[in-house]
Amino acid sequence: MLPLASKEKIKFIKSLQLRKNRQKDQSFLVEGSKSVIELLRSDFLVTYLLVSKLFYQTHFTLLEPYLSRIYMVKSDTLDKIGSFKTNNAAIAVAKITPNLPLKINKNEFSLALDGIKDPGNLGSMIRIADWYGISKVIVSKSTADIYNPKVIAATMGSFTRVKVFYTDLSAFIREVNVEVFGAFLEGTNLHEVKFGNEGLIVIGNESTGISSEIEQHIQNKITVPGFGGAESLNAAMSTAVICDNLRRCQGSDFPSIARK
Amino acid sequence: MLPLASKEKIKFIKSLQLRKNRQKDQSFLVEGSKSVIELLRSDFLVTYLLVSKLFYQTHFTLLEPYLSRIYMVKSDTLDKIGSFKTNNAAIAVAKITPNLPLKINKNEFSLALDGIKDPGNLGSMIRIADWYGISKVIVSKSTADIYNPKVIAATMGSFTRVKVFYTDLSAFIREVNVEVFGAFLEGTNLHEVKFGNEGLIVIGNESTGISSEIEQHIQNKITVPGFGGAESLNAAMSTAVICDNLRRCQGSDFPSIARK
Repeated sequence: MLPLASKEKIKFIKSLQLRKNRQKDQSFLVEGSKSVIELLRSDFLVTYLLVSKLFYQTHFTLLEPYLSRIYMVKSDTLDKIGSFKTNNAAIAVAKITPNLPLKINKNEFSLALDGIKDPGNLGSMIRIADWYGISKVIVSKSTADIYNPKVIAATMGSFTRVKVFYTDLSAFIREVNVEVFGAFLEGTNLHEVKFGNEGLIVIGNESTGISSEIEQHIQNKITVPGFGGAESLNAAMSTAVICDNLRRCQGSDFPSIARK
Repeated sequence: MLPLASKEKIKFIKSLQLRKNRQKDQSFLVEGSKSVIELLRSDFLVTYLLVSKLFYQTHFTLLEPYLSRIYMVKSDTLDKIGSFKTNNAAIAVAKITPNLPLKINKNEFSLALDGIKDPGNLGSMIRIADWYGISKVIVSKSTADIYNPKVIAATMGSFTRVKVFYTDLSAFIREVNVEVFGAFLEGTNLHEVKFGNEGLIVIGNESTGISSEIEQHIQNKITVPGFGGAESLNAAMSTAVICDNLRRCQGSDFPSIARK
């Protein structure tokens, strides 16, 4: 029989919805069945698990190594504790991993985000990076917090595979020794861009785009070609389209981690 | 001096957040500066406009023809009336346009959506269609309501240009006389698909994909190639990537309504 979560524990877990509490305790929330399962299969240190009876019974083998850290809650209380509207499965608390030294390898493309504000967009972009085999996302300090529960949820588990680095993006881009591509409304038609084997793709803020400070360090301005009446494409959609064009351009040069 | 909106009017406008009230009155809400401006420039019949003083002063020329239908509200009450968290600009009420007869023209690609449930996804897909010059989106009756305020907001004004048709999608696809492409997790690599000048692209539900009833009428199964660890790409992202590949494939055969 699993112990019930105490009021203090629930209060602490709730408190991690706020950034200041996440920073204080260097912990963050992971919610819902899919994300919690991916978390348990990853290298993250999991400190608490709140589970419904059904989730516990269904995933007993996966949960067994964590027994001393699992608490049972009534399934209708999980949505009161976390940020999800409905959650009848699980909430986990994991430790924030210390920032690794940021290093761009040869023969690798990375993504850089300049001031993405919407948690759903940031999470989607991490999921896109993961889909396209991009393992590093470098973000400006003005970008939303990767550990915001809404960002974690939108990554659909990809936060366990893609490393996110907060840095002075302008200084980083000034010094990086790979080709830098930036998404602008006026640039070379993406369909005509020749991507090599390594580089950095910069995506700017949802409303204001790439900041002028960073723009001056970008050699290659690229544009997702439009054909209709819409003024713009959402920043996450543009990221997906650019990454698809990147991998298409690399063709058989990029088969090593191909999905199938 | 503009009249203030009465309590009854505000109550009526609020009620349009619910589908049953939208259907009863054949009216829907449009919120925020950008969407309201695009609405006023479109053919939709606008019946009421609630505006803040600032919005009224800034857009007086655009608003002038609507003077008899404009009411002033305090800027901090717009978010209480509509669905936006913050809105200091305007809310409009417009009439739902009667369904036009659905007809697919020669030399045209359309989008078909089978059970898209998330309002943000549906709105994004309409915006994507607009960006890629697709003017018709045919949706199953199980798809979210296009007139849901969250869908309208996510289209970023594209609801004024893209026509959405609710229909028995299975029957429609069975009888349509163009090539039908469907997005599946196992299909021909999108980068190798040859799109012609006309056709239909089917995107399925966020979790369950295209229903088996519709699957049997799809000649061409296509897949957005993945290269990393993510299990799937969000349905709206896939739509953007597929539309980009479509227009790239058509190349100079599709320059007529090119953006620039």
